[in-house]
Amino acid sequence: MMEVMGERGTAGRAGAPRARVGRPRATPRTDDGRSAKAQILDAAAELFTTRGYAATSTREIAERAGIRQASLYYHVSAKPQLLLELLDASVRPTLEGLDDLLARPDAPAALYALATRDVQTLLTAPHNLAVLYLTPELADPEFASLHEARGRLRAAYVDLARRIGGPGGADFRGAACLQLVELAIELRQRGEVPPDAPHDIALACLRVVEAHPHDIARVSGTAR
Amino acid sequence: MMEVMGERGTAGRAGAPRARVGRPRATPRTDDGRSAKAQILDAAAELFTTRGYAATSTREIAERAGIRQASLYYHVSAKPQLLLELLDASVRPTLEGLDDLLARPDAPAALYALATRDVQTLLTAPHNLAVLYLTPELADPEFASLHEARGRLRAAYVDLARRIGGPGGADFRGAACLQLVELAIELRQRGEVPPDAPHDIALACLRVVEAHPHDIARVSGTAR
Repeated sequence: MMEVMGERGTAGRAGAPRARVGRPRATPRTDDGRSAKAQILDAAAELFTTRGYAATSTREIAERAGIRQASLYYHVSAKPQLLLELLDASVRPTLEGLDDLLARPDAPAALYALATRDVQTLLTAPHNLAVLYLTPELADPEFASLHEARGRLRAAYVDLARRIGGPGGADFRGAACLQLVELAIELRQRGEVPPDAPHDIALACLRVVEAHPHDIARVSGTAR
Repeated sequence: MMEVMGERGTAGRAGAPRARVGRPRATPRTDDGRSAKAQILDAAAELFTTRGYAATSTREIAERAGIRQASLYYHVSAKPQLLLELLDASVRPTLEGLDDLLARPDAPAALYALATRDVQTLLTAPHNLAVLYLTPELADPEFASLHEARGRLRAAYVDLARRIGGPGGADFRGAACLQLVELAIELRQRGEVPPDAPHDIALACLRVVEAHPHDIARVSGTAR
């Protein structure tokens, strides 16, 4: 087991609003200081990744979080909101600063940086919710913002593929990069994440976009 | 839309037994001659890939197949059997003749052949059930044979990666090949399968295992 564990209770990165002022707290903060919302997200993530999304009810999430179902609805509108916030944590950190990264003149180094960051995001998100990326329920319009975020990520890989390997097949080579990066999801699910996974996957991306061997050696050598 | 459509009603490849002789048929064959079992598998696949596995009941499958729920249980033991048979169609055709393929002395050509065949299997399976590969429900012991089959596939890629690119990191490079091949699943889900997808993905595999450029050009040139 070499799974890289994310810190728990970081669900706040997903943009969850804090409990509103002036309203009674549905539940007190627990000993470890995590908010009720963070506990609900943790409980939902645990159930979604072990039993599946459709098979999990909000009643079960509330039960596992140790609150009443009615209290749960004070913090979240419905089950899709929970999944969306959790999935957001698998994309949003990579998108931060993406424009600066794409503005770098050294495209191979930018691709290396983007892929390593993306793998690290997937490996350290509080739960491995990204296993649900292809799940049919995500086709619902509620998840449009997630698809938009992943679309921005794919476009970034395509842009770099075009700059590195010429115009031909950049769409395909960019999609292949994103696919390689998401190997992290399966490695994590199988509990077999090699310590060098971010580096190895980023190098595989450089090979797939047909970066020059000289650039691969340069980026690989300086970045370790 | 360039989705490669599989022929419908080929679920029989998945090893589905025909209705037993001497028992009354639960439903007559329909106009197009497909067996009741094939119709049940089609209905299940349609619902699993649009609504999700957990969200679909056997009652709904029976309804869509135009039979009574009791009749469904004459043909299949339960919902997991349906999913297993459907998923089997995404792996089994690639495994046929795998040993012969691995026995070829030309490892780069063998990898090219394996990857193109694997992509074609994923693109032409009657439904894109492979979107469910990472779904948490597949951790249930009922699906052990599927994981075993995918394990054989992964081992084949690792073997070829070792023969082509030396011993270092063969596990990783083999897993990266399987991951690249499964880009076919996402391309198909998005309805954006390029006509050269099997060729392009197989070449990407050769690059990721660090095949010699000479071998990549040779295999690529002869195989088109």
